[in-house]
Amino acid sequence: MDITTDITADFTALRRESVATVRAAIRECRYQGQTAGLAAGRLQANLAILPAEHALDFMRFCQRNPKPCPLVGVTDTGDPMMHTLGGIDIRSDLPAYNVYRDGALTDSLTDITDLWQNDFVAFALGCSFTFERALTEAGIELDHIIRNRTVPMYRTTIQTRRAGPFGGGMVVSMRMIPENRVQDAIDISARYPWAHGAPVHIGDAAAIGIADLARPDWGDPPPEHGEGTPVFWACGVTPQNAVLSAKLPFCITHKPAHMLVTDVDEFADTPFVQ
Amino acid sequence: MDITTDITADFTALRRESVATVRAAIRECRYQGQTAGLAAGRLQANLAILPAEHALDFMRFCQRNPKPCPLVGVTDTGDPMMHTLGGIDIRSDLPAYNVYRDGALTDSLTDITDLWQNDFVAFALGCSFTFERALTEAGIELDHIIRNRTVPMYRTTIQTRRAGPFGGGMVVSMRMIPENRVQDAIDISARYPWAHGAPVHIGDAAAIGIADLARPDWGDPPPEHGEGTPVFWACGVTPQNAVLSAKLPFCITHKPAHMLVTDVDEFADTPFVQ
Repeated sequence: MDITTDITADFTALRRESVATVRAAIRECRYQGQTAGLAAGRLQANLAILPAEHALDFMRFCQRNPKPCPLVGVTDTGDPMMHTLGGIDIRSDLPAYNVYRDGALTDSLTDITDLWQNDFVAFALGCSFTFERALTEAGIELDHIIRNRTVPMYRTTIQTRRAGPFGGGMVVSMRMIPENRVQDAIDISARYPWAHGAPVHIGDAAAIGIADLARPDWGDPPPEHGEGTPVFWACGVTPQNAVLSAKLPFCITHKPAHMLVTDVDEFADTPFVQ
Repeated sequence: MDITTDITADFTALRRESVATVRAAIRECRYQGQTAGLAAGRLQANLAILPAEHALDFMRFCQRNPKPCPLVGVTDTGDPMMHTLGGIDIRSDLPAYNVYRDGALTDSLTDITDLWQNDFVAFALGCSFTFERALTEAGIELDHIIRNRTVPMYRTTIQTRRAGPFGGGMVVSMRMIPENRVQDAIDISARYPWAHGAPVHIGDAAAIGIADLARPDWGDPPPEHGEGTPVFWACGVTPQNAVLSAKLPFCITHKPAHMLVTDVDEFADTPFVQ
């Protein structure tokens, strides 16, 4: 099947397929689109690839900031296979990659095999899809999903715990939750530490340095007259920002929304294939 | 106060004291005993100190084996302060340390300041005290606590996921749980991923390579005619074994049962001082 010519048709065809079929399509560059909604029930992850020289500090950064940076996988130095999350070749198994040099985006590619170096270490970090699905299954409707938009994300004054060159402010995503479901949203998301866990803040946006909810730094604005309580979760843009602001000579990330689709059950209690 | 002469009196005096008082007594070598029952409500942790050259592999080992190796803190290279768990000087703030050279125990010391090197990295790993307290508070009585014994621990055929020189079999601890409380024990311990989380096995000991429950590899045997279901949790002896079997030229651990007492609330959802 050649599905590169029509991304919409690709997605519609692929969303009913198994994770093996989805990843084969991605690996062979037959699908280069966003991954939300694909391989339902499988853990998806953010990606960061760094030279080994910075890997220990980056792992420390993740350990010290587990809510924005839930580390779900790390390769051996120079090994492009991420064995613990499935038969994953990290050089080809994401639909799209961003390549950064000295902190600046220099390329967006669909395969990075030619760029792989034997001192590279790849890190997979959990994402919000998991707890969003759990919230939806519990009857808590999420506006950005209903409207098919991207969740609004904001820079905050909450500081991360620094490790080496990695630090800076935490980025959060916001979802309006009906007041009588806020405690449920807390309890449900707390069950998924691999997917940012419980919220980091509830209610007053100004208290964490957000001047105007209508003007997110990333994603789409929330509805103008949305009802409910704003609930803020730590966001995977945080480590991406930390990596970019460290201005490493070279690093590679996933292209936003183009995630690593793993073999792992997204509701597993530890993020590993059995 | 001079409490080195009578460990029993020390313990009795200290168990009513604050974490600050407990750690001061330990730091000044006025208390050199076991830490179970001290500073109630504070997270206690296992310790491993390694040269930086092995730190990335050890962090990978912890990431890949989160149930036996729940990493709750890691220092910057060469920095003896573990800032994220309190005002902790890792060279003096444990009651006793074991020093290993080429995998063999060469010293037990109450302070390692003289041994500290500027390439050392210290790792703190969560321990079972947290979920044991939660089980006890839920009315699930634990035999080894009632009888004031050490929990029985066993080598198993469950393999850890290897990282560099670190690997080997998982060690588990066993607690007999009344059959009608097993699901509660699972649910309660699952809430504490920083303290080994949910059990790794329930019931048949032979299925995980344990020939005789009456003959543990570490700790005290369970009662001969104990009732209930044997429930097995991943144990912090696993990373200690992995470090020793890697036969590193040099490493330091806590002396068993002589743990790091941190400032962190043991029921916090992430292991950090606020």
